[in-house]
Amino acid sequence: MSQASSPTRFADLNPPARLLMGPGPVDVYPGVLRAMSTPMLGQFDPQFTAYMNEVMVLYRQIFRTENHWTLLIDGTARAGIEACLTSMIVPGDKVLVPIFGRFGHLLMEICQRCGADVVTLETDWGTVFEPDQITDAIKINAPNLVAMVHGDTSTTMAQPLYEIGPICRETGALLYVDATATLGGNPVEVDSWKLDAVTAGLQKCMSGPPGCAPTTINERVAERVKSRKHIEAGIRQDGFENAAGPRIQSNYFDLAMLMDYWGPARLNHHTEATTMLYAARECARIVLDEGLANGFARHRQASRAIRSGLDAMGLRLFGDADHRMANVTGVFIPPAVDGDKVRGELLQDFGIEIGTSFGPLHGKIWRIGTMGHVCRKSNILRCLNALEAVLRRNGFESPPNAGIDAADEAYESEA
Amino acid sequence: MSQASSPTRFADLNPPARLLMGPGPVDVYPGVLRAMSTPMLGQFDPQFTAYMNEVMVLYRQIFRTENHWTLLIDGTARAGIEACLTSMIVPGDKVLVPIFGRFGHLLMEICQRCGADVVTLETDWGTVFEPDQITDAIKINAPNLVAMVHGDTSTTMAQPLYEIGPICRETGALLYVDATATLGGNPVEVDSWKLDAVTAGLQKCMSGPPGCAPTTINERVAERVKSRKHIEAGIRQDGFENAAGPRIQSNYFDLAMLMDYWGPARLNHHTEATTMLYAARECARIVLDEGLANGFARHRQASRAIRSGLDAMGLRLFGDADHRMANVTGVFIPPAVDGDKVRGELLQDFGIEIGTSFGPLHGKIWRIGTMGHVCRKSNILRCLNALEAVLRRNGFESPPNAGIDAADEAYESEA
Repeated sequence: MSQASSPTRFADLNPPARLLMGPGPVDVYPGVLRAMSTPMLGQFDPQFTAYMNEVMVLYRQIFRTENHWTLLIDGTARAGIEACLTSMIVPGDKVLVPIFGRFGHLLMEICQRCGADVVTLETDWGTVFEPDQITDAIKINAPNLVAMVHGDTSTTMAQPLYEIGPICRETGALLYVDATATLGGNPVEVDSWKLDAVTAGLQKCMSGPPGCAPTTINERVAERVKSRKHIEAGIRQDGFENAAGPRIQSNYFDLAMLMDYWGPARLNHHTEATTMLYAARECARIVLDEGLANGFARHRQASRAIRSGLDAMGLRLFGDADHRMANVTGVFIPPAVDGDKVRGELLQDFGIEIGTSFGPLHGKIWRIGTMGHVCRKSNILRCLNALEAVLRRNGFESPPNAGIDAADEAYESEA
Repeated sequence: MSQASSPTRFADLNPPARLLMGPGPVDVYPGVLRAMSTPMLGQFDPQFTAYMNEVMVLYRQIFRTENHWTLLIDGTARAGIEACLTSMIVPGDKVLVPIFGRFGHLLMEICQRCGADVVTLETDWGTVFEPDQITDAIKINAPNLVAMVHGDTSTTMAQPLYEIGPICRETGALLYVDATATLGGNPVEVDSWKLDAVTAGLQKCMSGPPGCAPTTINERVAERVKSRKHIEAGIRQDGFENAAGPRIQSNYFDLAMLMDYWGPARLNHHTEATTMLYAARECARIVLDEGLANGFARHRQASRAIRSGLDAMGLRLFGDADHRMANVTGVFIPPAVDGDKVRGELLQDFGIEIGTSFGPLHGKIWRIGTMGHVCRKSNILRCLNALEAVLRRNGFESPPNAGIDAADEAYESEA
């Protein structure tokens, strides 16, 4: 075999040092980085299946649930979304999607691709719904499924959910929630809020790498999924029968087969992504070692501090102040300032990444994340200090040190 | 918020040392393990998009193609399969799937879930098709797509493909190939064999972690996919128009959107799995640094050696000797020996994993992988030596050292 005439080679990985204060991914906990260099195990090695079981136990605690079926989908956060929606939706099902940002649109779109009859409800970006708006829509439309986002990073808003779950139980609808942006940094009470299926990612408050979607479903969902179980021809054995319900349109995202892989049958499906499982396990250990309540407080405190700082610099915060997530802050780009130029200088000259925005907010706000490992006072002050300097270069003046002094004070007042 | 009353915690990751000689995952190159502990970058950081572009260049060389669209699907190997098939198949399309093992059944099943009208062709496990059998079936059925496996680890066989591509071009069919098991250890000549879409994983001869699917598609496929492009409502901007073709039934696996993410538009889709991309990049660097031809020779040599050794021990090799992959060997479990007990003792007492098998071969053969980092003489001898000892314990005697002597000789005769 001839080799390519002029092979192209590249140098060792050597990324510039960054402080990731965008909407995610964020800096990964050092222990998670180390966990990812752990050697492989076979997927049916007793130690590896033990790790899979430990991951189920750990994420039940993270999700605050007793749900047996608490597992990982091998893909990024939207893989978890699609696994739930494609497994739960039978073509023709009516699905209600309340939309308050980009990821509501994503849910709508995935539901449509699953063959659902989708009804949407929209509110302005930067606001959330009154519970009545959603409960009324559920009563009027009688959906089979309600699919909604908990915290939408595109708008930095978190939708209160504890009144939605009970109304879904009452009307017989299933409730799916995307908690990618909130899990680990804001309360997500799967059982007490009566959420039927919830998915997330690691790359926000869990401070892990993108590429793994922790997922939990309760027995209501499990029953629906099992009623659609069709096992692959190449591995079907005696004792595994196909169910009567319509086959799920994806093989990779077929939760029925995933349950047989994560359950005692250990029926092979995909090959579990070993390294991502190691990472997910380590993220959960770190978050639980800190204590969920302690972690939430740390996120709230950091957000209060950066918001005080931005305000003191004369910048205007975005969105409904009562419903902001505790891990990301939207701030208006000052008039006459080029938002992308400022972001570029923060990145190139100070090594700090902050986020741009999508859709109706594109070019209007920056989004500053304070999540997981990043969520510490030294980073808040570093970011505000650099932002002040870069904004001054770009013609926006604020009183020297006003931002860091206000943030500092916010931290002190909490101490 | 109240914490769980009795939190459950687990110890640090500390997996037992294993030598992974099953059908995959296998031991990962140390450089790849190290690469996976590299800190995150933002997905639109210029350095990160540069790494994405480098990955495209590296995998073009691995796949031996000039295809521009050579990228990663964020999921395990079957995620790559499903991304191609769901993006290529329009419901109602006729698809021909020649099946010579478990993964052919998987392709059939995924094609069915994509709404294809599937025609299959089967041959006994342990054999491959004569090219005429496939070309005749193409001529008779006039499929829109032929979907087939290159090397099926379930049977250890590799199907020659170089005569299939041209007949597909002639008849207007597209040709999709799953090269998960072969890529990096056996020739996979995407362009010269005229393969239209090819996917793989990292966890076989590429010696990386499971969870990432290198994928290449040519312009014939790209055109078909682009004709179905529908961009998410939440991020659609001026200049990005939807195409007239039917929307792809998966969002996550929508190659049209993935092309906009991996292309100059850098239109956000999922958040690229940073760590898996680092791993994929490092795997490719290592494989290309060795040289593809050198790596193939190393795999062939190791297989010859282990096969000589097994034969000298009085074990019977499985399958058509002319069409075995260079990286995995099937061997019959001797009568009166409990195959799973032997595998368990190899794992527990010697730290060596070898593979069981599926479907019609379940309980009949073991599968021994010699892939990537594992594919070295010391491992071949270690495995044969342990197998001899464990088999003796289990009542199957072979002449002392016969296996390792034969393997040693096979290595010497190549030197």
